[in-house]
Amino acid sequence: MLVDTTSPLFLSLDLAGAFAFALNGALTAIRLTRLDIVGVVTLGMCTALGGGILRDILLGALPPATFSDWRYLTVAAVGGLIAFLFGRGLDRLNTPILVLDAAGLSLFAVSGALKGLDHGVGFAQAVILGTITAVGGGTLRDVLIREIPSVLTSGLYAIPALVGALVVVSADAWGVAQVPAALVAAGACFSIRMIGVRFDISAPTPPGTARGA
Amino acid sequence: MLVDTTSPLFLSLDLAGAFAFALNGALTAIRLTRLDIVGVVTLGMCTALGGGILRDILLGALPPATFSDWRYLTVAAVGGLIAFLFGRGLDRLNTPILVLDAAGLSLFAVSGALKGLDHGVGFAQAVILGTITAVGGGTLRDVLIREIPSVLTSGLYAIPALVGALVVVSADAWGVAQVPAALVAAGACFSIRMIGVRFDISAPTPPGTARGA
Amino acid sequence: MLVDTTSPLFLSLDLAGAFAFALNGALTAIRLTRLDIVGVVTLGMCTALGGGILRDILLGALPPATFSDWRYLTVAAVGGLIAFLFGRGLDRLNTPILVLDAAGLSLFAVSGALKGLDHGVGFAQAVILGTITAVGGGTLRDVLIREIPSVLTSGLYAIPALVGALVVVSADAWGVAQVPAALVAAGACFSIRMIGVRFDISAPTPPGTARGA
Repeated sequence: MLVDTTSPLFLSLDLAGAFAFALNGALTAIRLTRLDIVGVVTLGMCTALGGGILRDILLGALPPATFSDWRYLTVAAVGGLIAFLFGRGLDRLNTPILVLDAAGLSLFAVSGALKGLDHGVGFAQAVILGTITAVGGGTLRDVLIREIPSVLTSGLYAIPALVGALVVVSADAWGVAQVPAALVAAGACFSIRMIGVRFDISAPTPPGTARGA
Repeated sequence: MLVDTTSPLFLSLDLAGAFAFALNGALTAIRLTRLDIVGVVTLGMCTALGGGILRDILLGALPPATFSDWRYLTVAAVGGLIAFLFGRGLDRLNTPILVLDAAGLSLFAVSGALKGLDHGVGFAQAVILGTITAVGGGTLRDVLIREIPSVLTSGLYAIPALVGALVVVSADAWGVAQVPAALVAAGACFSIRMIGVRFDISAPTPPGTARGA
Repeated sequence: MLVDTTSPLFLSLDLAGAFAFALNGALTAIRLTRLDIVGVVTLGMCTALGGGILRDILLGALPPATFSDWRYLTVAAVGGLIAFLFGRGLDRLNTPILVLDAAGLSLFAVSGALKGLDHGVGFAQAVILGTITAVGGGTLRDVLIREIPSVLTSGLYAIPALVGALVVVSADAWGVAQVPAALVAAGACFSIRMIGVRFDISAPTPPGTARGA
């Protein structure tokens, strides 16, 4: 039986994730390039909603849920606006924002994979959809501000999302009840991400390339 | 009652907008980077048709109208080809091309928002769709030629489109007849855009960042 | 009568093309920028599957065939992994990889155009869809690693794909049997591509721009 993705708890968590992504996405954009208010809010919204939109395009579930639902649009726009207005002051809040972002990553990886299963895609596809939901928004932002997407080059970011999606999809295949499975999967993703941040762990690079070079 | 988006008048205006976008998009691309004929025509077509394609993907109205209709493809390809052949000479026509581009922006903002309403999306979604239709093609071009999309950083470009879409969607909500509403909305967008160009007005930047720095 | 795109022969050729694209795409990405294992495999998969995904989005044939079918995902992931593990050693295999890539280009141009006809799009649209299928994946990769897509700037890459798609769509319009037509079309694309590589031929640039400048 599937997690009820319309329950108030699930929705609150998903909206909190979207808010964290919008805030963090807009702050990253402000730091990396010069933008006006349109740019900051747009990039916050792209970071928050882009992953879910890519997932829904691949599923053919159009119009995308995060675009149709005014709550996601509002939360994402407010996150971007706060980053625009208080960007300088928010620099001191680096740690809570990083934690919120890891929470968003975990929630999106799990909810994205569950939505894939809901639409009847296969095992590997559901795992990929969860990962795309989690990292797609940040990738879109990086492409728009002309950065090489950080998810492709450094740190543990896609891998925790992949693990979270893999856990929840495996649990579904083995018939485990999905509420505890979703909690364990999100917890695994969150833990790996925070351990990666704390100890500055990176994914392997191609053999023969020196990381420090 | 909705504007008849299949009327000859509406179609002619929309095609004129697509032509202006293709011409202006291809000329911008030629100025910013080195391209061959494939690149110039492709970028002209992306600028002209990209916004409408993004709108139709988000609406799930696939295949996209501007892709299915040979008239849009032809007008866009011809605009790109003219830019390729006469790019140097067209530099003298900067002002008429800028005016045509503002006209395209206005027409696409209004027609994009109306198409959203036609498909039954909400108020905020229709406004966003109008804006995406207007600025999406230029954003796609800038991503392809590795520029930070100018719409995110400078000038009044997204804001007039947003105002135009907002006017036509509000008029619909208030039950105003849509033909005059569409004219007023397009006029508002066009005027704000041209005033922004004339007086070099920009959208606000984040507090604490010096524009001249 | 249409080519049976589900025949084992057709499928094998298409999978071989996807494998060549994944390998070549990932190797190009490794050469141009610093990536970790997630980045190399992701870019290999984007190169292999991106063109087909863009085609299926434009057709509204969602979820995209190359995303739904585990064989395409597997072949693309394995190609990316091989490039990650043996990237240095594969530099000596430049010529076979270039030939495989030209084969992938030809197969994708023809199969993309045929899929468009299958879905009932017009002549020009089918030609464009074939070209997008062939060059879309590489373009997506270049955008992600912040290169100006090579297809827009240099060499004969889009033009052979365009010719291949044009031949197979024209043959369909004239009622020619499609199996020989597809073979001739793919052969034409492959030959033009290889002649372009051998003699370093480029598409024309805008009048007045010196290529050597």
